[in-house]
Amino acid sequence: MSDEERLARAALGRLTEPADPRVSGLVADLGATAVYRHLQSQSDLGELTDEVSSRLQGINPERDLELAARLGIRFVIPGDPEWPHQLDVLDGCGVWQGMAGAPLGLWVRGPLPLNELQSSVAVVGSRSSTTYGGEVAFGIALAAAEAGYPVVSGAAIGIDYEAHRGALSADAPDRTVAVLACGVDRVYPAAHRNLLNLLAQRSAVISELPPGCAPMKWRFLSRNRIIAALSQVTVVVEAAIRSGALSTAHWAQLMSRPVLGVPGPVTSASSEGVNQLLRQGAGVVTGGAEVLEHLGRAGEHTTEDPRGPALPRDSLSRGEARVLEAVPVGRGASPETIARAAGLGLTEVRRCLQRLDELGMVIQREHRWLLAPGSRT
Amino acid sequence: MSDEERLARAALGRLTEPADPRVSGLVADLGATAVYRHLQSQSDLGELTDEVSSRLQGINPERDLELAARLGIRFVIPGDPEWPHQLDVLDGCGVWQGMAGAPLGLWVRGPLPLNELQSSVAVVGSRSSTTYGGEVAFGIALAAAEAGYPVVSGAAIGIDYEAHRGALSADAPDRTVAVLACGVDRVYPAAHRNLLNLLAQRSAVISELPPGCAPMKWRFLSRNRIIAALSQVTVVVEAAIRSGALSTAHWAQLMSRPVLGVPGPVTSASSEGVNQLLRQGAGVVTGGAEVLEHLGRAGEHTTEDPRGPALPRDSLSRGEARVLEAVPVGRGASPETIARAAGLGLTEVRRCLQRLDELGMVIQREHRWLLAPGSRT
Repeated sequence: MSDEERLARAALGRLTEPADPRVSGLVADLGATAVYRHLQSQSDLGELTDEVSSRLQGINPERDLELAARLGIRFVIPGDPEWPHQLDVLDGCGVWQGMAGAPLGLWVRGPLPLNELQSSVAVVGSRSSTTYGGEVAFGIALAAAEAGYPVVSGAAIGIDYEAHRGALSADAPDRTVAVLACGVDRVYPAAHRNLLNLLAQRSAVISELPPGCAPMKWRFLSRNRIIAALSQVTVVVEAAIRSGALSTAHWAQLMSRPVLGVPGPVTSASSEGVNQLLRQGAGVVTGGAEVLEHLGRAGEHTTEDPRGPALPRDSLSRGEARVLEAVPVGRGASPETIARAAGLGLTEVRRCLQRLDELGMVIQREHRWLLAPGSRT
Repeated sequence: MSDEERLARAALGRLTEPADPRVSGLVADLGATAVYRHLQSQSDLGELTDEVSSRLQGINPERDLELAARLGIRFVIPGDPEWPHQLDVLDGCGVWQGMAGAPLGLWVRGPLPLNELQSSVAVVGSRSSTTYGGEVAFGIALAAAEAGYPVVSGAAIGIDYEAHRGALSADAPDRTVAVLACGVDRVYPAAHRNLLNLLAQRSAVISELPPGCAPMKWRFLSRNRIIAALSQVTVVVEAAIRSGALSTAHWAQLMSRPVLGVPGPVTSASSEGVNQLLRQGAGVVTGGAEVLEHLGRAGEHTTEDPRGPALPRDSLSRGEARVLEAVPVGRGASPETIARAAGLGLTEVRRCLQRLDELGMVIQREHRWLLAPGSRT
């Protein structure tokens, strides 16, 4: 892309808030360069012209890009080879909570090219997670990373943190990305300085907000649309009723991308939101293997339904199983008594006893049949 | 129904095991009286004739009915006014695990007429339930009973027990029914003598097995089809992978009746089976109110999606909420600074500050605006 387009997008990012439908609409129609020129020349773009006019003097996109580059931060925009095209769908999926549109660009700190996120999975959930949710998030991210799927999340305490930890624990290249609701040069929450530095060293920390921007509440909501849009699947691990993870899920639904949820106790406030999501039709997943089913090509990852341990009696026919259960503990019984208890004919019972004898499950003592030790447990 | 039909059905129940597809098929085609006569005269009914021949001498249906009556046990058969017609669908829903067909009749101990079970709900689950599952089962059964829906379950420890306890705790007539895998005169498990006596006193204990029959493993499987067939909805609360509750759910699915499941921790073996059921499309319910939605006529019971507590900021417009968040703690800021932080125009910010002032959320001190105490939490 031209330098002018990059500068215009950087400038618009300083002048306006993320996901402003007016901005994304104008940029989609006219291109960022033209929109920026209109604003500079105070042409009438409705309320927008008034809103940004006082800020026009204060911005300097050339210097922004230069300072960012000095901090190792690049600004990736549509048309760049590493632009993640899965974001483009945001321009066509409507307005929600007053927000809409693909980001003007993404500020990136870290070596991971963003076009490697195409098969990624978002693992999201509450900050107020429980040990249970943390373990499950860790396991899902680990399984995804081991199988080669990048992980996308926020940088909050709770589920986000456990997801990154899980992905980083994998015996696989580090591809786990934190999408921030502030500039990528900022550390929020402060406790996650090490995590953010590690991700920036090995993978990527990204944001549509220019460096320096503070994490404001509404920016988490627009940030959530980026998490959903980057990922082919969104997994909500734990979420209370007001959790932002539900807004991420909603964005994924708007883009017709799969939303998966991990069931949790109906008595746990931390699972209330995700259980609700399951009621509304989100897919149920109980662990990493089941998430993988949704990530690969059809049939690439399949899980088997969980089964209990195989028991010796599983190999018996229904008749044999009935006869085995009808053989009394202790003194044993005659075939006639066993037939009565099992509700089967005598011929059938004799055949079954023969087979159970071969399997070592019953013992014959004269005319009586006894249970062999341990054969019914 | 004629006495002959009742005697024939009682006799066939002694001669054969429940849910034998050959028996239910012949009875549906020829009627119980004819089938019993054929067996008595050793006419060729295939293997069945051989299987039952040795038992023909030992039975005495007249005496069975007489002894049962003395114990307060009645034998209800199709055609009786209290016959629960929802069982009839069992004759048309196919064979599963070698079992099929409506019961020949139901032996009943207790005052509740069985035709009052038409709108009942089955609350089932593992014997190895957790405190969590027990509480949820209790709550669901309580809510159902309070709303006038009878509860159907087994008589096992765990979920069955808690379901009956919940229904009996309701401020409503006692209509909670235990379906047994043995004769209704037997006490199984022994620890539930009081429960079974209470149900027989106030509601009903029922079984398709004649009095005296022992609880054999396969009889629990055929018993499960009765639980599902009696109920308009089956709720699985907790179920491990090998839990019999899953066979109840499967029977309900064969009859195209709703199957609901309570989500549980994916790390809990006691929820593994029910979470699997949810993966396969069972409806998610998190409590009694949501179960009721499936029980009444459309729209009769509706629940609202759970919401967090209402907060003062919920009533704010998006712009007002942004401005409120942009007002700094402490020394306050000018409208210009606030506009920059909020990414809004100055006119809009002034309007919002005015409204927040009226709501008592911000305070003006000369040209600076401050947060009113407690207004952002």
